[in-house]
Amino acid sequence: MNRFLTIVIIISSLYFQTSWCQVGLLTVDDFKPSSVNQLGKQYPQVNSEGRVRTSISAPQATKVQLDLGGVKYDLVKDGNGVWQGESDPQVEGFHYYQLNIDGASVPDPGTIYFYGAGRSGSGIEIPAVDQDFYALKDLPHGLVSENIYFSKLTNSFRRCFVYTPAGYTENLKNRYPVLYLQHGSFEDETGWASQGKANLILDNLIASKKATPMIIVMDNGYAYKANDTSLRPESVFEQVVITEIIPMIDAQFRTIPNRENRAIAGLSMGANQTMRIMMNNLNTFSYYGGFSGTANYPSADVIDVATFLDGKYKDGKEVNSKIKVFWLGLGTKEPTPFPGSVGAFKNMLDKQGIKYTFYESPGTAHEWLTWRRCLYQYAPLLFK
Amino acid sequence: MNRFLTIVIIISSLYFQTSWCQVGLLTVDDFKPSSVNQLGKQYPQVNSEGRVRTSISAPQATKVQLDLGGVKYDLVKDGNGVWQGESDPQVEGFHYYQLNIDGASVPDPGTIYFYGAGRSGSGIEIPAVDQDFYALKDLPHGLVSENIYFSKLTNSFRRCFVYTPAGYTENLKNRYPVLYLQHGSFEDETGWASQGKANLILDNLIASKKATPMIIVMDNGYAYKANDTSLRPESVFEQVVITEIIPMIDAQFRTIPNRENRAIAGLSMGANQTMRIMMNNLNTFSYYGGFSGTANYPSADVIDVATFLDGKYKDGKEVNSKIKVFWLGLGTKEPTPFPGSVGAFKNMLDKQGIKYTFYESPGTAHEWLTWRRCLYQYAPLLFK
Repeated sequence: MNRFLTIVIIISSLYFQTSWCQVGLLTVDDFKPSSVNQLGKQYPQVNSEGRVRTSISAPQATKVQLDLGGVKYDLVKDGNGVWQGESDPQVEGFHYYQLNIDGASVPDPGTIYFYGAGRSGSGIEIPAVDQDFYALKDLPHGLVSENIYFSKLTNSFRRCFVYTPAGYTENLKNRYPVLYLQHGSFEDETGWASQGKANLILDNLIASKKATPMIIVMDNGYAYKANDTSLRPESVFEQVVITEIIPMIDAQFRTIPNRENRAIAGLSMGANQTMRIMMNNLNTFSYYGGFSGTANYPSADVIDVATFLDGKYKDGKEVNSKIKVFWLGLGTKEPTPFPGSVGAFKNMLDKQGIKYTFYESPGTAHEWLTWRRCLYQYAPLLFK
Repeated sequence: MNRFLTIVIIISSLYFQTSWCQVGLLTVDDFKPSSVNQLGKQYPQVNSEGRVRTSISAPQATKVQLDLGGVKYDLVKDGNGVWQGESDPQVEGFHYYQLNIDGASVPDPGTIYFYGAGRSGSGIEIPAVDQDFYALKDLPHGLVSENIYFSKLTNSFRRCFVYTPAGYTENLKNRYPVLYLQHGSFEDETGWASQGKANLILDNLIASKKATPMIIVMDNGYAYKANDTSLRPESVFEQVVITEIIPMIDAQFRTIPNRENRAIAGLSMGANQTMRIMMNNLNTFSYYGGFSGTANYPSADVIDVATFLDGKYKDGKEVNSKIKVFWLGLGTKEPTPFPGSVGAFKNMLDKQGIKYTFYESPGTAHEWLTWRRCLYQYAPLLFK
């Protein structure tokens, strides 16, 4: 080993000594700006290991942390007052996070913002091995339309986003089937077309003729009875869907307004909600999708079909005759209680002889990459 | 003065002594959560004087400031580590702001976020005396649709938001005129339908039959020639509008594709840009709106019509015959150089005998309330 190299190694060792706990000697230095950064912002960055490097100027701060995936990583301040540091490798896909500056939990000013975890805040995209299926490509794109309406049941203004496929605005004689697609808890109607990339997934599927052109309606799963001021107000989401949203969509858009051309799906809380809505309204829908959730959540107990959802699964033959596609999906790394409750639900379906498709998303947890993959697998089965 | 009142005043004085610099003895204590807060967030708040009160937990911080309207207001920490404080009274309307935590400039986690001032960040709404014209009401609402497209001229994906009025999706035989409406510098295509409330302004105008139902296209005014990597890349926004956006909109939406049914308007930088586009393309548009801007910006000098915009204003009669409505608007509190440059432009129009409408927004500066009012005044004049 020559003298120059020895000196470099010693200096490097000294340099890293103060910070290696945060950075790690073995961090791969191929960081690139995250794909969901604000225009022109260089940080946060992601490397090929899935580590997140963030950076913020806070000259007078005494402690700055990156708060990601339930872990708070200390950042290190340089001579200019700029704090920087890296996380452990993250699983691929989309994650919410925030910065902690001397105890204040705030969005990272480097990213665009997403509604989830009960707040609008920062997100990071760890490039996934299969990211091509939700990539933005030069092919015909559908529209995502913000639709504001007044709901009498909740006595409030509500909003849904409506995806109409490429061609919808020009081919005025065509009518389309509709998928009603719901977000999870502490998320809202923006999730699916933002971090969920539902529009890009369908644009790609439709352009390659893998999915039937369809309308997708993404509404807000939180809907409470008007003037119910109790601590746990009564949810009227099912009534809002059946008596307000569907009639509005059928009047306003060129739908095919029958059960054969309506699907309903959701993720997590949305899977739970839409399963109940599906089973209570088999004359309204004929396709169901449950992504990372079932209506027995959070229980992993054996399901008593006599009482579960008012006995709606008692007659397996009837369910099979009514539901054209019964679809469940789950990430292989999902935490408790999801594998248990979905497993118990599947056992019930098996016992009842109810046909279903079960998809496992490899290596993903209770997160948006699981749900993007679920939509990608589920949508091609609809309206065929 | 009775003894009780004396004691109250003494106690009040002692109480306020530590904080009156920030709060002021005369602050009116009728603060309410801002209308653009995130769901369920109590702060920031606004009082009837237009003061902004913000609050954030930052137990280990040594200095937290509210950075609003070019002034940094020190907040005061309570025993629980929560910082709070108020701004001076702000003029009514919408303002961008941020928090400063020990030197870090970050969004306030209490608000929803808006793109402006070159970043996505916090905004505050000071209720305006005339807020009714942009209020969300129980009447038919149009859609705001996100439209993604690939631009060959810039070799990039671009996006516009398209407002289609109530009834557009149902009345399939109707065709509509189009207003192309542009944002200002350091803003983007989201501005007009978010902080600009263009959709609500038009919903209200159309419902009360004050404006002709129209489509509004809101695109991004930053468009640079493909592969131009120079420090000051060439803007090709005019070419993008004329050869990419308008043909796309006319193909995709039920427009009336002629000059009599096309208007173009913009605010600030967008006024400057759209004025050039208008004058270069009088066969494409017949209505112009310039909100807080003109193409001679920032100069207040007398305009030489022989050279200004290649002599496009030399023949006043020709301009009058081509432009059905030539509309200019400005806030009475706008800073230099806007009154000077708009004034010089008006003088040129007067000298050339060119007919125009000039509107002044009372008490507003170079801000969104000026532009909301401009749109409210301008839109009813179009396509009549």
